[in-house]
Amino acid sequence: MEALAVDGLPEIHEGDDLAALLEDRVDFADGDVLCVASTIVSKAEGRAFDRESFPPSDRAKAIADRLSTITGEQKDPRFAQAVLEESEELLTESPFLLSVTRFGHITVNAGIDRSNVPGADLLLLPEDPTASAERLSSALGVPVVVTDTSGRPFRYGQRGVAVGWAGLPAARDWRGETDRDGRELGVTVQAVVDELAATANLVAGEGDDGTPAVVVREWSFGDHDGSDLLFRREEDDIVREALRQWTFDGHQQ
Amino acid sequence: MEALAVDGLPEIHEGDDLAALLEDRVDFADGDVLCVASTIVSKAEGRAFDRESFPPSDRAKAIADRLSTITGEQKDPRFAQAVLEESEELLTESPFLLSVTRFGHITVNAGIDRSNVPGADLLLLPEDPTASAERLSSALGVPVVVTDTSGRPFRYGQRGVAVGWAGLPAARDWRGETDRDGRELGVTVQAVVDELAATANLVAGEGDDGTPAVVVREWSFGDHDGSDLLFRREEDDIVREALRQWTFDGHQQ
Repeated sequence: MEALAVDGLPEIHEGDDLAALLEDRVDFADGDVLCVASTIVSKAEGRAFDRESFPPSDRAKAIADRLSTITGEQKDPRFAQAVLEESEELLTESPFLLSVTRFGHITVNAGIDRSNVPGADLLLLPEDPTASAERLSSALGVPVVVTDTSGRPFRYGQRGVAVGWAGLPAARDWRGETDRDGRELGVTVQAVVDELAATANLVAGEGDDGTPAVVVREWSFGDHDGSDLLFRREEDDIVREALRQWTFDGHQQ
Repeated sequence: MEALAVDGLPEIHEGDDLAALLEDRVDFADGDVLCVASTIVSKAEGRAFDRESFPPSDRAKAIADRLSTITGEQKDPRFAQAVLEESEELLTESPFLLSVTRFGHITVNAGIDRSNVPGADLLLLPEDPTASAERLSSALGVPVVVTDTSGRPFRYGQRGVAVGWAGLPAARDWRGETDRDGRELGVTVQAVVDELAATANLVAGEGDDGTPAVVVREWSFGDHDGSDLLFRREEDDIVREALRQWTFDGHQQ
């Protein structure tokens, strides 16, 4: 398996035809998977906004006030408002905003990034990253994973994860398959789109400017059942339940 | 970057010289990183045990009884005892055992796997996977990541993660680095050993028998600060805190 950074992509602007820009730079081969950073998908889709676009509600003001007190830094209620609008739910409001985005991804601040788009300082995640992946996949004729970098419980550091995918299942379902001794395998469901996103992120980090598109070549999903369940349903997520019940006790993070 | 599965490794037994077996099969090049599954490290290190070796304590019996009631399947108190002995703490005892292993990894059942070793049906994780990685790295002269496959909060499916590493830092620390517009990067710490483990797991899954060693070639850590913090400290882990306070309410998982 190879992972090849796509070099030479220009700065992406709203309305740019990402598929065409990629096709100009990559000679896609059979079996390739394209991993593309949500940042450039968002830019092409016009998801950069000025924080002025998010007049804060009372709830956003209260959240920003509390975070300002906890962190000792002035927090912008318009940013909190943007996070609220992007979230189906906040699992925690302090010591940071842990969002369930409208498409099911759980991440800090609903994955909103600062942007380098002039006059628009916030970059939101794509509204429906799987729909974005589907458009790219159908234009390019290869499977596509839209990636984000995100922190996680239990472990420090961020790693690449999938937020949308098309043209391949999210996971290999090994249930019922056996090892060479005929025992059922310990691994049951393998979240390959997340592993592809992690692979892409290893390579994407290399350039000075970052390389927001990576082609994974000579990897195959193989002859397994597929599953498109990636984001846990509430009833299968004890951590979500535990966080809902938990209250920050005020210690400095 | 390339990821190459190491083919033809034999079944590993206690006392086998893994480094020699790998050196026979791989022509290591400058810059290679070896990712090796904890399963074969454990086998070489004699970490396969029969469950008879874990006479259950009262606590293990109580845990197994409760899990039997919840799941409707008979659970073995000796297995619960093995998990207890491998764990510094159990964050949850139901609906499943979420362990903090003695070396800091948080995973279900302390990462104990069923084994295919005759007369020893449980395969424990290496006692100190970073020490294992150090021994392999010093014998082979390349950085080594010892990997596990593990589930996670918020997302279904397992993915490769690092449990030990040597010869490279766990993470790239981008703090203070800027993008092409001079803005500080959104990603601050990138857990590259986990991304390497995920990459390896994509490839390792391909063979019928699994290929428990993968060489990542032509990847470079780059000119970044490094960090060896991978497992969150308690005070930086709100999920650990929330899970400690949470109690399973008895619904079927």
